[in-house]
Amino acid sequence: MERGLVDFIISTGANLYHDLHYALNFTLRRGSPFVDDRELYEEGVIRIYDVLFPATVLLETDSYIREFIVRSKLNEPISTADFHYRLGLDLIERYPGCAEYSVVANAAKCGVPIYTSSPGDSSIGMNIAYHELMNDSRFMIDPNKDVNEVCAIVMAGQQNGCVILGGGSPKNFYLQAQPTLWEVYGIPKGGNDYFIQITTDQVVWGGLSGATPSEAVSWGKVNPGVLPDTVVAYADSTIAFPLFTEYAVGSKYGQRERKNLVHKRDELVATLKREAKAADAKRKSEVGSTH
Amino acid sequence: MERGLVDFIISTGANLYHDLHYALNFTLRRGSPFVDDRELYEEGVIRIYDVLFPATVLLETDSYIREFIVRSKLNEPISTADFHYRLGLDLIERYPGCAEYSVVANAAKCGVPIYTSSPGDSSIGMNIAYHELMNDSRFMIDPNKDVNEVCAIVMAGQQNGCVILGGGSPKNFYLQAQPTLWEVYGIPKGGNDYFIQITTDQVVWGGLSGATPSEAVSWGKVNPGVLPDTVVAYADSTIAFPLFTEYAVGSKYGQRERKNLVHKRDELVATLKREAKAADAKRKSEVGSTH
Amino acid sequence: MERGLVDFIISTGANLYHDLHYALNFTLRRGSPFVDDRELYEEGVIRIYDVLFPATVLLETDSYIREFIVRSKLNEPISTADFHYRLGLDLIERYPGCAEYSVVANAAKCGVPIYTSSPGDSSIGMNIAYHELMNDSRFMIDPNKDVNEVCAIVMAGQQNGCVILGGGSPKNFYLQAQPTLWEVYGIPKGGNDYFIQITTDQVVWGGLSGATPSEAVSWGKVNPGVLPDTVVAYADSTIAFPLFTEYAVGSKYGQRERKNLVHKRDELVATLKREAKAADAKRKSEVGSTH
Amino acid sequence: MERGLVDFIISTGANLYHDLHYALNFTLRRGSPFVDDRELYEEGVIRIYDVLFPATVLLETDSYIREFIVRSKLNEPISTADFHYRLGLDLIERYPGCAEYSVVANAAKCGVPIYTSSPGDSSIGMNIAYHELMNDSRFMIDPNKDVNEVCAIVMAGQQNGCVILGGGSPKNFYLQAQPTLWEVYGIPKGGNDYFIQITTDQVVWGGLSGATPSEAVSWGKVNPGVLPDTVVAYADSTIAFPLFTEYAVGSKYGQRERKNLVHKRDELVATLKREAKAADAKRKSEVGSTH
Repeated sequence: MERGLVDFIISTGANLYHDLHYALNFTLRRGSPFVDDRELYEEGVIRIYDVLFPATVLLETDSYIREFIVRSKLNEPISTADFHYRLGLDLIERYPGCAEYSVVANAAKCGVPIYTSSPGDSSIGMNIAYHELMNDSRFMIDPNKDVNEVCAIVMAGQQNGCVILGGGSPKNFYLQAQPTLWEVYGIPKGGNDYFIQITTDQVVWGGLSGATPSEAVSWGKVNPGVLPDTVVAYADSTIAFPLFTEYAVGSKYGQRERKNLVHKRDELVATLKREAKAADAKRKSEVGSTH
Repeated sequence: MERGLVDFIISTGANLYHDLHYALNFTLRRGSPFVDDRELYEEGVIRIYDVLFPATVLLETDSYIREFIVRSKLNEPISTADFHYRLGLDLIERYPGCAEYSVVANAAKCGVPIYTSSPGDSSIGMNIAYHELMNDSRFMIDPNKDVNEVCAIVMAGQQNGCVILGGGSPKNFYLQAQPTLWEVYGIPKGGNDYFIQITTDQVVWGGLSGATPSEAVSWGKVNPGVLPDTVVAYADSTIAFPLFTEYAVGSKYGQRERKNLVHKRDELVATLKREAKAADAKRKSEVGSTH
Repeated sequence: MERGLVDFIISTGANLYHDLHYALNFTLRRGSPFVDDRELYEEGVIRIYDVLFPATVLLETDSYIREFIVRSKLNEPISTADFHYRLGLDLIERYPGCAEYSVVANAAKCGVPIYTSSPGDSSIGMNIAYHELMNDSRFMIDPNKDVNEVCAIVMAGQQNGCVILGGGSPKNFYLQAQPTLWEVYGIPKGGNDYFIQITTDQVVWGGLSGATPSEAVSWGKVNPGVLPDTVVAYADSTIAFPLFTEYAVGSKYGQRERKNLVHKRDELVATLKREAKAADAKRKSEVGSTH
Repeated sequence: MERGLVDFIISTGANLYHDLHYALNFTLRRGSPFVDDRELYEEGVIRIYDVLFPATVLLETDSYIREFIVRSKLNEPISTADFHYRLGLDLIERYPGCAEYSVVANAAKCGVPIYTSSPGDSSIGMNIAYHELMNDSRFMIDPNKDVNEVCAIVMAGQQNGCVILGGGSPKNFYLQAQPTLWEVYGIPKGGNDYFIQITTDQVVWGGLSGATPSEAVSWGKVNPGVLPDTVVAYADSTIAFPLFTEYAVGSKYGQRERKNLVHKRDELVATLKREAKAADAKRKSEVGSTH
């Protein structure tokens, strides 16, 4: 992000929530997946595969999120990029230096928007929901804003591409931006120019996580002309992504001017709206002229 | 659903969107994954693994969704359960008999709420977003409502359990209901009493999709006492789920009274709010009394 | 095998060795993969995933094999089909009725040859090796006989095909018969006419177990004309194979005359030798005539 | 091998056969798995996942093997280690410098025995079988020798351990050496002291390839005391093994005196025989003394 190599991020909520622990200075310990979870439960220890930490880490991170929401006086629907940006700024203010080991904080510092395709699905979403239930707040994530902002960013790209770690809902949320343009807004774009996926899923199960860039061509998500250059690396991201980034950072393209997209969201959505209106008008006039 | 064996559903948006094709009477064809997607793209054919259909199916399903939104006069944030219910009723009205081959329609008929943890991530979400951008609508999905409704349903269960097909965001969205109760609302519940997952993911990648019921015990998502009875079947759902349902339907538990949860959402959320307020008050008084 | 639907079998040694336990009337118990193997080791319990049995089952099965070898007076190299056939007859004689629950015994009864591509790799192979080391026996498995017998059987087939459970060395050992014919013996055959594989391996790892029938076409292992009809089912054999056999047995092709190939091995190899000599002579005369 | 870090190798025959192409100076080309194999077949091109080469490479490698067998005047059963050693020496003699890019040649140079658990299963095995069928040769691989040699090498180790790439028959062939000692020869050894596996297989399918070091403890294959230090890395060997070797070679243990085991096989087997006889005598005397 500091090198301008990351324009924007789409993440699960869980990745961002557990990132907060680092910003808040909690320690997560490397353990083993071969432990007795009933004992862990008795002792109030939470396990994520081979990572262990006390349940209090959850409770205190939750408290921080709820207090941040109250403090921020948020009381209307906003996009996840907006929310994560404000959250990141708050972290930086309260925990100086935390941008060094928190993705959320560093993204705010670098002007990189972070989207979540499943805003209710994580402890972040759970604590926003608390606020609505308990405090009758009108603050919520507006998924429409997320869809349109991502679509607007993609439309603005001279060339588009993605590096996908895993798959799941974030994979589709990025890839659907191209169909949103042609299928919903009537704006042809031509598909992604680059496609790199690191995954352990497989094509044969038929799901979107393991779906190939070739299948994406049929949807207009990937430019048919670049298909031979698309890459799917079948590997655990924790192995393959460090190798990939080391290579990317060390190459002659290892530094770019930052795009600061977090500050250009409104402007880009306004452009999308203008183009969509124009496409709509054109479509209607064409339909009209055939009668 | 007709037999009362399904209380509620959490699905990706894509499953529901593509279900609409059936309700709208479009034909999806069984092809092969071994085709040239550049040719498909040229000819306007969309591929999902081995399923093929013309791109017009997308365009016309999208039109239906947009027209439904306009027709329904929706202009405020609602839950996905509410939205899918209204959608299902509209389908039944306009396409009589479609409940026989559409999950969305049949769920509406049977009073089964359908939630989506990633409301912006699908062509349904794309067309809702269109409505906001182009028509300045105030209709949106409120993820908070989804979080609280699912949490309220789970709290109301005397016994809780799930059948998970695959994994992904829907898996976590269901399982997080128990932590929402104890971690966020201070209401102890004890974890799920039943846990069945059919998946092709694996535990060793460390993600939530492949995480075991044992790991879920450490989070309070699964009752530690039932761990030996939890099941993970490593198989494609298209093979294992029909075997499972045939067994379940043929057993002496193959029929139950329907719960009609789609109509009880407000009432259950009100109960959740009451309990959460009580837990909050108790917590505060305890903290107070220690000082 | 009784219905004549199985002409011959290629198996790992382990499958056959553990099959003997059933013939010898030992009990293997269904346990769980989630046990403490150090405790099992202390208590002399052997585990194969979720199957548990005392180590004495190994020791007594080993004794039986060694005694059988002595008793059978084997003292020269033979094929695995020959060895397993004699073993099966001995089992039937000593444990009447065991053909009902032992593949090795039943194959002998039905005249179905069983080959092992890795003859030293199993407790069967270990006990044959014991015999050579301790008793200076000249009995051994001659892998050449296995290669040539399988090749001769395949050459004799009017149509060839296989059902592959898993993959591994047995998969290649069957499929290499066609290249042995054209590549080594100069006898064109045209590849398999049927190809069914049930596997949990994946193509992307690049190994033979997960290799597609399409890749096999390039090797002349599968007839290019039948490629669209080949099938790879990505599933655990313990789930998919019973479904498959139930279907096959229930179909109108559910019964065929048995081929009794175990008794035709010498004759078929003699035919192979004749054809190979003829092909060799032809090749040499062609090379000669060009000079 | 040059650094003395590899004592001996157990490989599939295919790995060794295709290694010969490099020694014989043939070119294998990197292609793509997304090609039309029917076209490849028409044009006489062989595919191994994304590796392509003309069928003549097979035919000429086969010729070399057959000529080597004739030239070497082999006419009796030998172990695969013996055979591969002779083959490697022949390659070095005829193709000077080939040890740099051929494992078989380099192993011969470094005195590293190479075993194959499935000696008939590869084009090497096919061409040995040709020799028996066409030339009435008495040369064959004796699997008993392989079993006993590997067992003797393992018995001689002060500490034992393995690095497993993939799984399959070679994995079991190494691991069975410990049970061969205690189960068949009555010589307690205590299991492996080190266990490292790089694999893409999974434990849940229940097979040996994906079986854990923990399961191996129950068999006496792995020392129970070292279980927490055993490692299974779930990754493609082509990614993980270079990282692993780079680490191993760069460490302070990156160089050891070579063991030259290929020249000590007879001596080690003689020791095994002596120990096995002693154990047998002791067992018999104990049984005798209890009567």
